[in-house]
Amino acid sequence: VSPRSGRRAGDSGTREAILASARDAFARHGYDGATIRGIAGAADVDPALVYHFFNSKEQLFTAALNLPIDPRRIADAVLQGGPREQVGERMMRTFLSVWREPDSRAPLLALLRSATTNEQAAAAFRQFITSGLLARIAEPLNVSRLRLEAVVAQMLGTMLLRYVVGIEPLASATDDEVVAMVAPLIQRALDDF
Amino acid sequence: VSPRSGRRAGDSGTREAILASARDAFARHGYDGATIRGIAGAADVDPALVYHFFNSKEQLFTAALNLPIDPRRIADAVLQGGPREQVGERMMRTFLSVWREPDSRAPLLALLRSATTNEQAAAAFRQFITSGLLARIAEPLNVSRLRLEAVVAQMLGTMLLRYVVGIEPLASATDDEVVAMVAPLIQRALDDF
Repeated sequence: VSPRSGRRAGDSGTREAILASARDAFARHGYDGATIRGIAGAADVDPALVYHFFNSKEQLFTAALNLPIDPRRIADAVLQGGPREQVGERMMRTFLSVWREPDSRAPLLALLRSATTNEQAAAAFRQFITSGLLARIAEPLNVSRLRLEAVVAQMLGTMLLRYVVGIEPLASATDDEVVAMVAPLIQRALDDF
Repeated sequence: VSPRSGRRAGDSGTREAILASARDAFARHGYDGATIRGIAGAADVDPALVYHFFNSKEQLFTAALNLPIDPRRIADAVLQGGPREQVGERMMRTFLSVWREPDSRAPLLALLRSATTNEQAAAAFRQFITSGLLARIAEPLNVSRLRLEAVVAQMLGTMLLRYVVGIEPLASATDDEVVAMVAPLIQRALDDF
């Protein structure tokens, strides 16, 4: 057994090596520019092992940045969870479910904090949102990218004022009250194409 | 001349002492709880001197947190700049004018970063928005507080995606294009009371 393969003994060591390599690659090259092959090479493992542990580039990114949810799941919930005329409500409820719990909110806030000071963090974040979420839902919803970004802005801003700044009455409102206020605004924005 | 009064020699020393005392008081007691009398006392100056330098508690807060704009000016621009049916556009243009320049964006981002980790910073921030801006415009606009907060959320989220995360096409759109997309969403939200 060589020292190098000894370092990889056990699943958790290999997994951590892949995650470290992935964080580095996403920071250097962004989400689209980073490749499984390159990440595997830098971690000194076979690309098949990366897929074995993480299934897809998105899930690897989600794990590397410690994100609470794979954006593909958000996209699926938005597109497949019910009729088009309730997509605004589904979007809001999905966002609320992710932001409500401090444990799943923390890594999102950490990423946002990094993005305010670090262009590489911002690049990875935006490419992930763009490639992972917006590219999936813009066409099925028949909405322009700019309009969809205005909708994401509404949801992100609402989460920040509710959970970070803590402005009242938004901070103490129930999820249903927040949905009743914001979902119709989003729905109208999406319908007005 | 005592050592203490010697330390206050010159306007800039006095001004800095008041600002340091104000930062401490706003962090400890929040915007509403902090008093000019208490801030003056901690800085060992007469309250009249605080007014001499800063005119009002709001301007003192603005200076202490290094904010790029007094929210009273935002409120005035929103309320007095033109007809009610263009208030959405005025809000967006006012926000864009503050966020566009890196020098005036930086302190806002610093405050938001602090608010994500520090409850006292969040408390000062939210009381300022609430007392300084929302309390002034909610009644004249005849809009509920929750609805107004949803509108502020739309604007804040748009600024973050445009200037921090840098999502395209929002990041490269002209101000006019952003206003054309977002102002009608805000205006409809405000009109639907």
